[in-house]
Amino acid sequence: MNGTGPIRVIPLGGLGEIGLNCLVLEYAEAAILIDCGLMFPEHYMLGIDRVIPDFSYLTELGDRLRGIVITHGHEDHIGALPYVLRQVEVPIYAPPMAAGLVREKLREHKLLDSSRLEVFRPGEEWSLGPFRIDPIHMTHSIVDAVALAVNTPMGTVLHTGDFKLDQTPIDGRASDLARLAEYGSQGVLLLLSDSTNVEQEGHTPTERSVRGGLDAVFREARGKVFFSTFSSHIHRVRQVVELSQAYGRKIAIVGRSFESSLKIATELGHLPVIPGLFVDPDDVSDLPAGGVTLLTSGSQGEALSALTRISMDDHKVKMLPGDSVILSSKFIPGNERVIMGMVNHMVRRGAVVYHQECAPVHVSGHASQEELKLMMRLTRPRYFVPIHGEYRHLVRHCALACEVGLGPENTFVVEDGHVLEIDPQGARIAGQVTAGRVFVDGKGIGDVADIVLRDRRHLSQDGFVLAVIGINQQTGDVVSGPDLVSRGLAVEEDVQLYLEEARGLILETLQQVARESRTDSLEVQEEVRKTLKRYFSKTLERRPVILPFIMEM
Amino acid sequence: MNGTGPIRVIPLGGLGEIGLNCLVLEYAEAAILIDCGLMFPEHYMLGIDRVIPDFSYLTELGDRLRGIVITHGHEDHIGALPYVLRQVEVPIYAPPMAAGLVREKLREHKLLDSSRLEVFRPGEEWSLGPFRIDPIHMTHSIVDAVALAVNTPMGTVLHTGDFKLDQTPIDGRASDLARLAEYGSQGVLLLLSDSTNVEQEGHTPTERSVRGGLDAVFREARGKVFFSTFSSHIHRVRQVVELSQAYGRKIAIVGRSFESSLKIATELGHLPVIPGLFVDPDDVSDLPAGGVTLLTSGSQGEALSALTRISMDDHKVKMLPGDSVILSSKFIPGNERVIMGMVNHMVRRGAVVYHQECAPVHVSGHASQEELKLMMRLTRPRYFVPIHGEYRHLVRHCALACEVGLGPENTFVVEDGHVLEIDPQGARIAGQVTAGRVFVDGKGIGDVADIVLRDRRHLSQDGFVLAVIGINQQTGDVVSGPDLVSRGLAVEEDVQLYLEEARGLILETLQQVARESRTDSLEVQEEVRKTLKRYFSKTLERRPVILPFIMEM
Repeated sequence: MNGTGPIRVIPLGGLGEIGLNCLVLEYAEAAILIDCGLMFPEHYMLGIDRVIPDFSYLTELGDRLRGIVITHGHEDHIGALPYVLRQVEVPIYAPPMAAGLVREKLREHKLLDSSRLEVFRPGEEWSLGPFRIDPIHMTHSIVDAVALAVNTPMGTVLHTGDFKLDQTPIDGRASDLARLAEYGSQGVLLLLSDSTNVEQEGHTPTERSVRGGLDAVFREARGKVFFSTFSSHIHRVRQVVELSQAYGRKIAIVGRSFESSLKIATELGHLPVIPGLFVDPDDVSDLPAGGVTLLTSGSQGEALSALTRISMDDHKVKMLPGDSVILSSKFIPGNERVIMGMVNHMVRRGAVVYHQECAPVHVSGHASQEELKLMMRLTRPRYFVPIHGEYRHLVRHCALACEVGLGPENTFVVEDGHVLEIDPQGARIAGQVTAGRVFVDGKGIGDVADIVLRDRRHLSQDGFVLAVIGINQQTGDVVSGPDLVSRGLAVEEDVQLYLEEARGLILETLQQVARESRTDSLEVQEEVRKTLKRYFSKTLERRPVILPFIMEM
Repeated sequence: MNGTGPIRVIPLGGLGEIGLNCLVLEYAEAAILIDCGLMFPEHYMLGIDRVIPDFSYLTELGDRLRGIVITHGHEDHIGALPYVLRQVEVPIYAPPMAAGLVREKLREHKLLDSSRLEVFRPGEEWSLGPFRIDPIHMTHSIVDAVALAVNTPMGTVLHTGDFKLDQTPIDGRASDLARLAEYGSQGVLLLLSDSTNVEQEGHTPTERSVRGGLDAVFREARGKVFFSTFSSHIHRVRQVVELSQAYGRKIAIVGRSFESSLKIATELGHLPVIPGLFVDPDDVSDLPAGGVTLLTSGSQGEALSALTRISMDDHKVKMLPGDSVILSSKFIPGNERVIMGMVNHMVRRGAVVYHQECAPVHVSGHASQEELKLMMRLTRPRYFVPIHGEYRHLVRHCALACEVGLGPENTFVVEDGHVLEIDPQGARIAGQVTAGRVFVDGKGIGDVADIVLRDRRHLSQDGFVLAVIGINQQTGDVVSGPDLVSRGLAVEEDVQLYLEEARGLILETLQQVARESRTDSLEVQEEVRKTLKRYFSKTLERRPVILPFIMEM
């Protein structure tokens, strides 16, 4: 430790949730951002398209922020880039596959020309202010994933990115354990390590282990094989390419995300170029069913995906009796019912469906407990902070660190917005910055707050009732209405009777109100609201949003 | 086969979904209903409290319906009783535990006095019209579960109810395999068998197998033990009672459903009466933490349950560092994220949480493939119809039947509303009756149709915008408004500017409309709707429900 620090570590996302990964590293008067991911909305976030981190703190950093360094190309690590670039103007550094995907993304958002995107490869160090950044090759469920050794005058911060320790990866390029161990010998000040699978005992199986499960499907299949996984899972796709060749099947790609991913991966040499192997989906019907593999997007049952539409017979590609389907990915928690609904449709088409619940056609890309412990033993950090996990994952990962000999005083459960400060005197949580989740809904970023969601939730439960009343401002007489309109309350025919009765009730109520009160719109509004609320609660046991609208005439 | 039949089997629910179990059996001019369950709503059923079967066909049956026979007391088998009793007036027959739970339910709905509820025990046969009903004891995750052998002049229909074949159940009373085999020797015409776990290979472990997992928690626990399972899972509770005794812990019950279930089970002798073992939750704070077990409802993370509130520190019972929590039930698909959110809160309180993902604290109550095959071998049915499952389960179960030697022509994938007819000439699907799902929302039964749900979904996505305009009917002039109000669209401050601009747009649009058109409310409505729709789609990329309200003045 030569510098006097402090080093400051400030997660803006991913420490308290799965997804949204985004972390600030500061030293002296400089800062870098590691990853900039999004999160898909939870069920209660009605109408929200995606969730991104709150970037307020980056604006505070201003010129001190020197760049954004990406560990790999998954959406939960790159997905918020188009949004952050509207707030800060800094270069992005990414490994090749991630860079390809980022480039696509920036092009879509019309940000490509105004952005600076640099590609780095493992072992190619570079400096950003006081940080000397050394990317280290790691195995994960996407090619070109890296860990980052960020060297500062105070010492080395090692950020694992997402990883598993696959000793027999498809391309033969295992994680660079030697480099990790070298850092361990030199001394690592702080290890930030992936917690996604910390609840899994043992060791995550190698990517190669799904080969048997996939081969079994191809061996038995007589009809078409529909194959689906995350489109960027190049090693999984490569296995399917090899199996299709071995079993004499042509491959058609159905789904835009697959097309774009495979194009990038092929250009980078991650997929072999085999003339004549790929065919146009339109030509599939000319081939024998047993001679076709379809790479199809939609393994999570996404509503508009190719696979969902095919399962519902709403696509030019047809699923027929005797076809096989492989859903080669984890069911993301919360998606199970939708996915299983899609599977029911496929079975109705006559297909046989293979998925995580019934066949060995998927393995995780994240390290389990034994690998996580090995990571700590190799890198021998002084301090430890678990990253990428919900609260319970972070707590569990700290417990694991203690099992391999780190002192509890040297492990920290840090959450989004916390500031971890390390200087020669030690490490501590030394404050808090603005952090949180920002909702993106259509073109709006952050204009849907909790109160709007609360309104949407309320509307989604029992709909609304609108009452328009015209009142003579002089006399307080009701001169028009009350006219009542509802949506989402009950079916039209049933509701008319209730609205009619409610209309009478409002008139009665208003008659009992003093004349001078009736000339006060706010008072009338309140009376109408109360009356309707009580009425619908008693008759229907429902609580629609009630909107009295008083016109002064 | 003496009778000439036909026997008609008509499922009204449960054959195409998990839950909603309800099946009509007809012979000659008589019919019985087996089970009458509900289903908890799926995510897209906004604002719906519960889902029940469409009972139209029962009304058609009229006097021919002789009674409702219940196989066991789970909600998906008894939950719709209070609703069906508003449409038909027939006696209910139930085994003791189910009868206790049904009685509670009818009391809540103020239907107890007007209903006839009869209790039966395994081996006690009785007749309902041409049906001689023989209940057969089965093991399941609730006590007093039965299969029903329904004997008719045409032959025997065997309905398994929900079951597993537990050879070492907690109370020593295994499924009555001998009786099943006897029927097999005499000849079973039709087997209707539980498909819930048909995707599971092998054999479901015995209930006794969780003892080790539970014991491990009690052995290690120093603080309080919070235990949660479905409140009617009496054998699971009995194991916890025994463990609490063994480890010197008093038991407090927190949650109304637990209180009522345990009271019924104790009266029936399924739980031992141990003086001084149970204490009031209010007295828990006076006991040492290591001396307390809390039976707490809410294992599915239900919003208002005791367990959720305790996890959020919003309950008189406190969860503290060193406490242990056992979630001893399956995570129902769709609930994972909510349950895991609750677990995060518990970890924040300092508790250690044991659940299906990390500890052997739960086993299923449904038969796996080997048990299902055994059921078919024992009963040797001529015809086979899988019940209790989604479409893919039913298809898989038929495939299993063929593996044990039934001909594909004798197995039928029957769905809700299908009529399976069996007579001496054979069996066939011979028509269809009205069937489907009816939504219960507050006091309304069936008044929320798909169109109402669509409105709610639309409202839940982007809220609504209301535009009130007063128009002079003679001149077509705008004399009041447009006044715009929105909810659920965006936050108030942001939205005001947009509404102001939209207001201007509406006025502009109306100026371009011919005077005579402006006196036509419908035409003005349509213009306003189109204008607002285009505007919000372009500016915000949102599609609120738009409600133009024209007042003719």
